Amino acid sequence: MTDTNGSDSAAPQFTAPKPVIVLVRPQLGENIGKAARAMLNFGLTEMRLVTPRDGWPNPSAGPAAAGANEILEEAEVFESLAEAVSDCTNVYATTVRKRGVTKPVVTPEEAAREIYAEPGRSAFVFGPERSGLETEDVAVARSILTVPINPQFGSLNLAQAVILCAYEWSKGAGLAQPTQEDVLPPAPQDELEGLIGHFERLLEDKNYFWPETRAEANRLTLRNLLTKPAWNHLEVRTMRGVLSTLEKARRPRGE
Amino acid sequence: MTDTNGSDSAAPQFTAPKPVIVLVRPQLGENIGKAARAMLNFGLTEMRLVTPRDGWPNPSAGPAAAGANEILEEAEVFESLAEAVSDCTNVYATTVRKRGVTKPVVTPEEAAREIYAEPGRSAFVFGPERSGLETEDVAVARSILTVPINPQFGSLNLAQAVILCAYEWSKGAGLAQPTQEDVLPPAPQDELEGLIGHFERLLEDKNYFWPETRAEANRLTLRNLLTKPAWNHLEVRTMRGVLSTLEKARRPRGE
Repeated sequence: MTDTNGSDSAAPQFTAPKPVIVLVRPQLGENIGKAARAMLNFGLTEMRLVTPRDGWPNPSAGPAAAGANEILEEAEVFESLAEAVSDCTNVYATTVRKRGVTKPVVTPEEAAREIYAEPGRSAFVFGPERSGLETEDVAVARSILTVPINPQFGSLNLAQAVILCAYEWSKGAGLAQPTQEDVLPPAPQDELEGLIGHFERLLEDKNYFWPETRAEANRLTLRNLLTKPAWNHLEVRTMRGVLSTLEKARRPRGE
Repeated sequence: MTDTNGSDSAAPQFTAPKPVIVLVRPQLGENIGKAARAMLNFGLTEMRLVTPRDGWPNPSAGPAAAGANEILEEAEVFESLAEAVSDCTNVYATTVRKRGVTKPVVTPEEAAREIYAEPGRSAFVFGPERSGLETEDVAVARSILTVPINPQFGSLNLAQAVILCAYEWSKGAGLAQPTQEDVLPPAPQDELEGLIGHFERLLEDKNYFWPETRAEANRLTLRNLLTKPAWNHLEVRTMRGVLSTLEKARRPRGE
């Protein structure tokens, strides 16, 4: 997997940044290994783990990876999904459940097309094996990814969901895509988090999130509202400026 | 999975005949079960087995099928591949190996297109887990199906190869697509204008648009920023609420 000068030669060379695979609270090490194997089959190499249930590294992962051990060795662990995708502009939450969230829903095929059309880094986010992603996880993402599936029998396991996403992405991986260079990509997730945090801080000062029983739902609504625009770096900065202005006293004219 | 008159209602109704999945000399019952599960996820229901190593039925298959037991119960066993595909017009031998055979090589995507374009019945043929199809098996097929895969790491297992073929086929099969019924259309322009006006009023109070030479450009930037999200009626209303909260004094707790 590694050539003589130590560089990663495991995967074909692509021009667009490869999407990362994020596993949120994965349960079995075996399934993490299977996901790594699924990834490498289609040239994806970067895995991120959010608070894996049994800690990390996990001795059950390696045997299931069937040779994709390099992915496991280089997997990074994060405390939260927001941190795990902080450098990503396109975040896809994979889920089959209907939810009252107003986000675009795309297929793996559509997601792959979007990823190639945008210069930013993308993330496919997968939930725990049994329960899938929680509403708060989905709120972090810009889009929901759903595999169109037999409505009477939806039983994709984690590695299968991963392989379908990786497979669709790999179809375009050899092709140099034309980029829309006049359109800036969405700001990285950490800038978006900064904006959301700024809104929350100002609104907390005004008791917006009160009463407590509504606070969580209101925070989710606000997060989804601010995630939807896919504002770029400059736009996020402008909105931060708007908020800073609103929280200050009247700006003096003249120096 | 079965309705009152006993007919197969497990899968949606399609106009083109569904392809059959043929497993040639499969070794582990568990893998036969996993293949059944992979099939049913994407609406394929007919499995044929050519001389399974451990006989048939196999008690290890059921637990791995995760509910796709009907496929196993109805699986037919044949003595040879030729018999198993005797009623099929399109026969695809899945293999990753280069062989000295002069047959067309197609991807799962291309195979799916061919299957829909031809009225005959099709078969996807898979070899034993370890060794794959023998040359004599491949000779029975009209085409070779190869999944384009990372050249440095080709490690698809049987169920994964099955699921990719079934998935590609299902795209044309009219499976339930993810719906976006939760996604409301963008708010009418007058609501957007109301929001922009609200922002401008608050910002004017803080001299945001000063000095005068920058005012026009700043207004345009703000308008573009707020137009981009395509917020719907509810989202615009939420943002109006945010602004109202920010312009007010601290909201009193209590009734």
